[in-house]
Amino acid sequence: MRGGIFIKTLALALFLIQFENVPLTAQNTAPAELTSPNGNMTMRFTTSAQGRPQYELTYKTRQVIKKSGLGFELKDENIALMEGFVVDKVETSSKDETWRPLWGEEDQIRNHYNELLVHLTQKNTDIKMSLRFRLFDDGLGFRYEFPQQEKLTYFVIKEEMTEFALTGDHTAHWIAGDYDTQEYDYTTSKLTEISSLIKGAISPNASQTPFSDTGVQTALMLKTSEGIYINLHEAALIDYACMHLNLDERSLVFRSWLTPDGNGDKGYMQAPRTSPWRTIIVSDDARDILRSRMTYNLNEPCKIADVSWIKPVKYVGVWWEMITGKSSWSYTNDFPSVQLGKTDYSKAKPNGTHGANNEKVKRYIDFASKHGFDGVLVEGWNIGWEDWFGHAKDYVFDFQTPYPDFDLKGLNKYAKKKKVKLIMHHETSGSTRNYERHLDDAFRLMKEYGYNAVKTGYVGPILPIGYHHYDQYTNNHYQYVIEKAASYQIMVNAHEAVRPTGIARTYPNLIGNESARGTEFQAFGGSKPNHVTILPFTRLIGGPMDYTPGVFEMDISKINPGNNSHCNSTLANQLALYVTMYSPLQMAADLPENYDRFPDAFQFIKDVAIDWQKSLYLEAEPGSYLTIARKAKNSNDWFVGNVNGEEVRNTKLSLDFLDAGKKYVATIYKDGKDAHYKTNPQSYEVSKKIVEKGEVIDLRSASGGGFAISIKVAGKKDLKM
Amino acid sequence: MRGGIFIKTLALALFLIQFENVPLTAQNTAPAELTSPNGNMTMRFTTSAQGRPQYELTYKTRQVIKKSGLGFELKDENIALMEGFVVDKVETSSKDETWRPLWGEEDQIRNHYNELLVHLTQKNTDIKMSLRFRLFDDGLGFRYEFPQQEKLTYFVIKEEMTEFALTGDHTAHWIAGDYDTQEYDYTTSKLTEISSLIKGAISPNASQTPFSDTGVQTALMLKTSEGIYINLHEAALIDYACMHLNLDERSLVFRSWLTPDGNGDKGYMQAPRTSPWRTIIVSDDARDILRSRMTYNLNEPCKIADVSWIKPVKYVGVWWEMITGKSSWSYTNDFPSVQLGKTDYSKAKPNGTHGANNEKVKRYIDFASKHGFDGVLVEGWNIGWEDWFGHAKDYVFDFQTPYPDFDLKGLNKYAKKKKVKLIMHHETSGSTRNYERHLDDAFRLMKEYGYNAVKTGYVGPILPIGYHHYDQYTNNHYQYVIEKAASYQIMVNAHEAVRPTGIARTYPNLIGNESARGTEFQAFGGSKPNHVTILPFTRLIGGPMDYTPGVFEMDISKINPGNNSHCNSTLANQLALYVTMYSPLQMAADLPENYDRFPDAFQFIKDVAIDWQKSLYLEAEPGSYLTIARKAKNSNDWFVGNVNGEEVRNTKLSLDFLDAGKKYVATIYKDGKDAHYKTNPQSYEVSKKIVEKGEVIDLRSASGGGFAISIKVAGKKDLKM
Repeated sequence: MRGGIFIKTLALALFLIQFENVPLTAQNTAPAELTSPNGNMTMRFTTSAQGRPQYELTYKTRQVIKKSGLGFELKDENIALMEGFVVDKVETSSKDETWRPLWGEEDQIRNHYNELLVHLTQKNTDIKMSLRFRLFDDGLGFRYEFPQQEKLTYFVIKEEMTEFALTGDHTAHWIAGDYDTQEYDYTTSKLTEISSLIKGAISPNASQTPFSDTGVQTALMLKTSEGIYINLHEAALIDYACMHLNLDERSLVFRSWLTPDGNGDKGYMQAPRTSPWRTIIVSDDARDILRSRMTYNLNEPCKIADVSWIKPVKYVGVWWEMITGKSSWSYTNDFPSVQLGKTDYSKAKPNGTHGANNEKVKRYIDFASKHGFDGVLVEGWNIGWEDWFGHAKDYVFDFQTPYPDFDLKGLNKYAKKKKVKLIMHHETSGSTRNYERHLDDAFRLMKEYGYNAVKTGYVGPILPIGYHHYDQYTNNHYQYVIEKAASYQIMVNAHEAVRPTGIARTYPNLIGNESARGTEFQAFGGSKPNHVTILPFTRLIGGPMDYTPGVFEMDISKINPGNNSHCNSTLANQLALYVTMYSPLQMAADLPENYDRFPDAFQFIKDVAIDWQKSLYLEAEPGSYLTIARKAKNSNDWFVGNVNGEEVRNTKLSLDFLDAGKKYVATIYKDGKDAHYKTNPQSYEVSKKIVEKGEVIDLRSASGGGFAISIKVAGKKDLKM
Repeated sequence: MRGGIFIKTLALALFLIQFENVPLTAQNTAPAELTSPNGNMTMRFTTSAQGRPQYELTYKTRQVIKKSGLGFELKDENIALMEGFVVDKVETSSKDETWRPLWGEEDQIRNHYNELLVHLTQKNTDIKMSLRFRLFDDGLGFRYEFPQQEKLTYFVIKEEMTEFALTGDHTAHWIAGDYDTQEYDYTTSKLTEISSLIKGAISPNASQTPFSDTGVQTALMLKTSEGIYINLHEAALIDYACMHLNLDERSLVFRSWLTPDGNGDKGYMQAPRTSPWRTIIVSDDARDILRSRMTYNLNEPCKIADVSWIKPVKYVGVWWEMITGKSSWSYTNDFPSVQLGKTDYSKAKPNGTHGANNEKVKRYIDFASKHGFDGVLVEGWNIGWEDWFGHAKDYVFDFQTPYPDFDLKGLNKYAKKKKVKLIMHHETSGSTRNYERHLDDAFRLMKEYGYNAVKTGYVGPILPIGYHHYDQYTNNHYQYVIEKAASYQIMVNAHEAVRPTGIARTYPNLIGNESARGTEFQAFGGSKPNHVTILPFTRLIGGPMDYTPGVFEMDISKINPGNNSHCNSTLANQLALYVTMYSPLQMAADLPENYDRFPDAFQFIKDVAIDWQKSLYLEAEPGSYLTIARKAKNSNDWFVGNVNGEEVRNTKLSLDFLDAGKKYVATIYKDGKDAHYKTNPQSYEVSKKIVEKGEVIDLRSASGGGFAISIKVAGKKDLKM
């Protein structure tokens, strides 16, 4: 099935397509139009009177992006790729293919678009630049392309000047633009309110560099007063700086704002090169934003030949007890500072709070084995944690030497016996050079002991000092680690790394990223109760998140009396996250003893699948609610999740997605009648019933609540219930 | 043989030494004095009225360094390690040991000093800082030490404020301070003339960042009007920024000026830590500056357990023909730019000028083998040279993939057959991260094919962009490469790396550095004819230089008609350099065909030793002349070299260093009567004569000339001459 070309161009543009070598004239600034396969989306390319390339976007006759300028300012002040461009040639094409992701929300993805490729020449410089637009039914992706040419090979970007000219003062779900953190709570406001709200929206972080009162991060979720949902992000961010958006409040134009490196430069380019794709997903139905696979489609196909070793992972970990402050990553309190290679741990007095000790890890292994988890993450296993943070230490970890109370060999052997894998942890403290220096040895060590996945971390300012978490240089580091890991058949779950942009299609060993405010913040003061109704529209657009759900004890002081934080979520909401926050990597974050207290609720975490044949987005409104049903891969099991914002809400869940004629057992985990994320988060009800296709279930979600349902084909035993 | 302690302190200081726990009082600011083993040098430590630590230095009753302040400004503006210090305790000790360098100007080195260790506390902060002074007969070394302590662990240096307060407007042999190049010609002037001459002293370089009109580099060679020679440098520069000196013209005080990193910071420190040593070598005899081994003595003993694989190397190379522009490093002119992994060299049209081709390399191997050289350096063997320079390319070389016309396996096999080793070349183009990423693979490749030495290069600005050739971060890179190479039993000859500071004592696989204006500049416009009379007093204080002498064809246009450069040196001067410019790594830089034209002169290069039992500094005046006699290790052969500045000069060379009763054959290579570095550089005379101890030979050195003599015990055949 191949889609046709739905190209509409004015007479001259058509002429240019047919006769490619037509000499440049003022006339070839005529607009070129492109329509999406189903006709809902239309984009138009023009050049301004000054020869600036421009695009605009329409959805079902409503303008979504007004005429918006394109181009670059360069460090070389003699060149600006902004104006004076004429169209050399316009090419069109279309594609309709279906590909199978290794893991994902469904087992096949359709990549269907019409394409417009505009070749430009800047008249006074003879510099050539192309713009490639791909128009899908769910949105527009476009990128800059610099062909091999005489007049421009190497150049340094001062700023990318891509505009997104909006049609009104839309509602936005935003976090402040920042070169070094993505871990802010979302604010929902009108665009023109950003500047007055941004100071309050910037909470303290281990590293942070906000840059503008009107600067926000992507993916940015917008909603117009007419009910059009617009998502702005990027795809295939490789060898380039991460893009932020900066708003001109008067014109309501967002302009790209790249992350600068330590020298203040925003991109070192060598033609032939392309930029990442800039993406605009649009619909009048919020669920379509979640359905969109545009971001993956704009990435390259898988580059890893043998992917047999890449598997989704459900795991527990020696982690939450450190996050809550009950345990420590460090082994001793003896050392005012550590110098690896000089500091002698063998004689140090254990502090008694070290989490990653043999006994504790064995208990986690036992727990994981008993309940069918694939892996056990252990943080704080390696020496150096006594002074790892905040000192710009170059040689901060060696990623190889365990603490005296962590038996690397013995624990891996024990885990293997229990059919569980330990998950490696490489916190870098932002010291990227040091990590790269140890990478091969660290990965070899992992292979030696049977680790096949690593969680990486970049807490604190990046080294080299002055560089940022999301600049081109550091993004190249993350990419280097992903590719190096692939060469060792190691899966990567990168924390504090740049937000993903669909590159897991190309490198599916990137099975997770943090890159947003995760569950840990529920132990650092809490996140907004509607946080998880926004993340799927923002952070998850680029790829899965290691959100680490599953908190059953919301009163953190019960874990660590010195920590008065509260997890702003009901227990049912926590369960629903395993469905609503898609990831091939799912943690059960809480302590084993808390799961032991609620074995009926814990059953959902044990049961829920982590890889899917298909996903149905039943209800969605960013900031308010989200209901998703997913069918497990190679199974007839369905799992449904609903997360709710602050307002109590009812769902009429129609089970019309089930197979006709089959009977299923639905196990429903829902908020108790008096449940509330703050006052009564542990109030929940579990019930079972036999259900069929078409049945409607009435469900009530509390404030900050939700529900989770597992639906399995009923066996004879079930039908006797 | 252990030296006594020649400590003189005033009464209270003595009291403090004896009773270490005496409480701090104003009185313990009493001066502490230290005298060198032979009594010639005296230093005095005091604190100023404001509690600033100070030192001063006297040589044979003449003050050399006036009272000079010590301390640091920190990035944390709340702390300045400048004033308010009181002396806690003064410790003294002495050492007299002899150690055997693996290679060097002599086969044993005496390390003999008296030491003063002053423990200080800053009263208002309770910060502890110590100053360790080591006073040798040839000078003073001192460093800062930060003990483990509560009040100061991690700190960032804004500037090191060490002063060198001079006693007059001395004559200085200086090059401009610069964060990215050391390749300037020396200027000889009064100190107060530096600021007016510096602009003219800064010649263009591939990377350069001068910072002050009165900033100069170390090692700095000074001469007072009374004829005292003073050399200022540093020792054991590890994990610290390289020090420059900045002059206050009115007070004639030099102050340390560290090289900043890309963030403008000058040092990330973690106690316990020491600074490098600051060194002041002093004598009223210029030859003592050359004799001094203080810089090595202040470095740590060898840290490489097995050093059997480290050997001095005499070599030729496919190099001068690229430097002169006769050949190219690049293989093709087809590519406007190269992207490694994408650019396909297999179909590229060879440019016909590529130096490192199989046929050429074989000829060099044949030549090396025929004339007894150990190695053949080949530059431009690996892909990437088409656009390697000036583009801040991150992935610029892979250090592993040869050009299509370079048979890595075959050539190494051929070299082995001919009992010669190929020398590896790793030009990094300043892209340090890329080099580190490939280092293991590149070194493994070397071992696979039998390479045991690498010449590294850092031409152009450093990556990460904004960082400098001599900052702490980049210095750590050079050190990382040295230590990594040692782990592969590979010797390193680092070009464009930070100037050496004696660390080859600790890591003797660092057999050479460039780190100054080398012979290549004779093909880039020429160097001053007296350049080589200065380098031994400056650049060579820290370690050997890969100066690449041996140019026989001074008219570069004879090699490449498009290059009108002239080598400002007579042929005899070029020969003398093998003696005067000590290095365990000596190249014969010129083309084989030029050596074939002068086989009698070439004989000296073939004969000269590269490792020594002892060295005698017969005559020396920086900028003017230098005569050195060296006895080869494990041999009775002597070699004498003289290099001369611009003024014609006569030497009465007394052979009183020879063994009594033996007859020797002296082969004398001297300037022809009409020789002149500019007008007649190839005029030379070779003569042989039988000589004995005590004999005096009259020799005349032309302008920019010199002489070289080999003196071998005569055999029967010789005595028939």
